[in-house]
Amino acid sequence: MKFEALVEVRLRPGISDPQGATIERALPALGFDGVSDVRVGKAIRFAVEAPDEATAREMSVAVTDRLLANPVIEEAQVSVL
Amino acid sequence: MKFEALVEVRLRPGISDPQGATIERALPALGFDGVSDVRVGKAIRFAVEAPDEATAREMSVAVTDRLLANPVIEEAQVSVL
Repeated sequence: MKFEALVEVRLRPGISDPQGATIERALPALGFDGVSDVRVGKAIRFAVEAPDEATAREMSVAVTDRLLANPVIEEAQVSVL
Repeated sequence: MKFEALVEVRLRPGISDPQGATIERALPALGFDGVSDVRVGKAIRFAVEAPDEATAREMSVAVTDRLLANPVIEEAQVSVL
């Protein structure tokens, strides 16, 4: 069976995020006030061929730990849809 | 009130995704078979100061359209949490 996985990779709190800071600095000039704490992460989607959802989740977590997130500076959240 | 917004920005179907293709090519060598259609997008989180959820959503969509996604090649999904 084919499952779809969605992995959100976020920078850990305290790790500086220049991309987010740049967005945040641009907002007031565009007329957006009241937006803060902008953090830019990755959203990775892929298809997993697995016999059941538990196996699909296990594989997705393994792929994430091995290849998609750097645990020193990032944390990842894996969802199987 | 403070709301948290999560915006997922994805490349539109058909737009080439070299980052996703590179991940996909690396997987078999790491022992992961059965993973396909890897697409790398962005997950942007921010805080919105707004009187209610509807206004927060409206502001988040406006910020996304204006600054976070390029509608020619990307599609965005906005969630207010």
